[in-house]
Amino acid sequence: MQTVHIDLGLRSYPIHIGSDLIAQRGLLAGHVRDRAMVVTNETIAPLYLDHTMAALGNVPSSSVILPDGESFKNLDVLNLIFTALLAENFDRNCTLIALGGGVIGDMTGFAAASYQRGVDFIQVPTTLLAQVDSSVGGKTGVNHALGKNMIGAFHQPVAVIADMHTLATLDERELRAGLAEVIKYGFIIDSDFFTWLEANLEALLARDAEATGEAVRRSCEIKARVVEADEREHGMRALLNLGHTFGHAIEAAMGYGHWLHGEAVSAGIAMALDTSRRLSLIDEETRVRGLKLLERAGLPIAPPPQISPDTFLQFMARDKKVDAGSIRLILLDDIGRSHVSADFDHAALHATLQHFAA
Amino acid sequence: MQTVHIDLGLRSYPIHIGSDLIAQRGLLAGHVRDRAMVVTNETIAPLYLDHTMAALGNVPSSSVILPDGESFKNLDVLNLIFTALLAENFDRNCTLIALGGGVIGDMTGFAAASYQRGVDFIQVPTTLLAQVDSSVGGKTGVNHALGKNMIGAFHQPVAVIADMHTLATLDERELRAGLAEVIKYGFIIDSDFFTWLEANLEALLARDAEATGEAVRRSCEIKARVVEADEREHGMRALLNLGHTFGHAIEAAMGYGHWLHGEAVSAGIAMALDTSRRLSLIDEETRVRGLKLLERAGLPIAPPPQISPDTFLQFMARDKKVDAGSIRLILLDDIGRSHVSADFDHAALHATLQHFAA
Repeated sequence: MQTVHIDLGLRSYPIHIGSDLIAQRGLLAGHVRDRAMVVTNETIAPLYLDHTMAALGNVPSSSVILPDGESFKNLDVLNLIFTALLAENFDRNCTLIALGGGVIGDMTGFAAASYQRGVDFIQVPTTLLAQVDSSVGGKTGVNHALGKNMIGAFHQPVAVIADMHTLATLDERELRAGLAEVIKYGFIIDSDFFTWLEANLEALLARDAEATGEAVRRSCEIKARVVEADEREHGMRALLNLGHTFGHAIEAAMGYGHWLHGEAVSAGIAMALDTSRRLSLIDEETRVRGLKLLERAGLPIAPPPQISPDTFLQFMARDKKVDAGSIRLILLDDIGRSHVSADFDHAALHATLQHFAA
Repeated sequence: MQTVHIDLGLRSYPIHIGSDLIAQRGLLAGHVRDRAMVVTNETIAPLYLDHTMAALGNVPSSSVILPDGESFKNLDVLNLIFTALLAENFDRNCTLIALGGGVIGDMTGFAAASYQRGVDFIQVPTTLLAQVDSSVGGKTGVNHALGKNMIGAFHQPVAVIADMHTLATLDERELRAGLAEVIKYGFIIDSDFFTWLEANLEALLARDAEATGEAVRRSCEIKARVVEADEREHGMRALLNLGHTFGHAIEAAMGYGHWLHGEAVSAGIAMALDTSRRLSLIDEETRVRGLKLLERAGLPIAPPPQISPDTFLQFMARDKKVDAGSIRLILLDDIGRSHVSADFDHAALHATLQHFAA
């Protein structure tokens, strides 16, 4: 087991990475206060809920099983968590445990932020995407019919337990979608990691445990450093949104659940590469090198052609990354170097949207 | 205009108290960032919404009108605020304005805490209860069918504007309910204020502007000092809940909206006086003196007799003030002196419940 520490003063916590961590007695239970409520979904429950409850040992524990999927990430389903807690008289000294992917993690975290105005929670991410991205950093929330992640809170977990063993059962498409966020870290801030990914992509696709553990560790290290520097996304943390302004528009325009988040982010990164190239921030060789790694990971490098430039702009204007009405993009200066900008030539963005709509 | 400052570091804010403050140009607008969304209800809108929008002058402003009443303080109605914000592309630099009583203030505050993970909001309380209690201190939230205020956040406003003029249209019963919280401050922490209230109660019931302004100012001063000392209710702030553990049980058992919050709190204070007397913490003279002021204010000094002791205990065990399964009560040591306790002789509590159920 390796541990990455995220240092946020009173809100600091460990990220444990390794194999068979869920079943390891004492590890999970050691982070629980008086009582635990495990929140999971219909897909994950048959696979890991029994192991999780067993590992909790003597800790008084209950569970609630939600329907599976991004389309259930809303206030109505969130309310099922509150109902479960209240029906069993859970008080402020309880700990919620998010056992599942990003949807479960985001919803459980927001439920923990809001239940009795704030209780503890532990992230036990079971997808690669959740392990390298959404379980770390304290962003929690649900979707609204008019926009993704529009309702939520910053609420840090008390621990993250990333069990490589859970990736064995992960759907191939989900694995590839998770790699989009891993590759993103290389793009925005770490060219060495990008080069490492180019060399190790086949091992990652083959679910080699050592390579995967290393990719998760390095991703979490990068995310931890970025979140430590800017917990509430006033500056640097925005870099983590590379591809996301485009990606969220794709997800919203297509209807949540049709494209996986990581797939939309991959297409979004391809679009950000295109805009960065049109702005002469990167050369053609860099753009092609970037696209190639995404392609090798089996990820889309273009949005669905039926989304018009106007539809893109409409959904992008609703994105949280929008500041005072102007669209902010994460643009690339090189592999491993990026910046946030609202002050770019919008003709380049329009050209990108036209190009991909054609 | 008088101003009470609440000092919470980066989350500090002013509480402005005076007459005709809503209509005062520049006062409200001065606390708004880029755009304002006024949240109000069907009762308040015809009375004060036009004045509010006019006072906002050149600030781009919209409004959303919710149904009126505690029974609408839930996640479904909260979602109407998010829909209004998203339909008009409000970004993170917006400011919500809560124009109404405690329900509007609590819901708008929680919407502000959660919209895009946190935006600014201003409290413009239009009831005495909201002016002296719920608008100050940053507690926000909604009810769940299984418990009051069980879902929420700590989120401080950027300003509170308490306009005495709005009390002129306040329903008589609402005015008296507000006085319950005013009297509570005297009970828990300030015997001089209690004596002042005994001397000035008729002026307050007659809505004398000067006396009311003074009562609001002194109440806000007390609440500000308590919240400064204990923003997140780890200790002293719990004193503000005198009568509330009983009161919440009354509201929940009767169904929200039948008893006003202040009425339930008044009966709850009478019950806390009874338990304190049975524990010999106060003498009979003090108990009678306490009841007398509540009675003179036209407030109930007993719960509805149909609530059985078991029903009380069941709802009290669900209250947020419950710590690790044991019921915590605010008990009185004298007029102006109180403490929190989970470690009292429960026979006294049971005797109180039996007494009032008879």
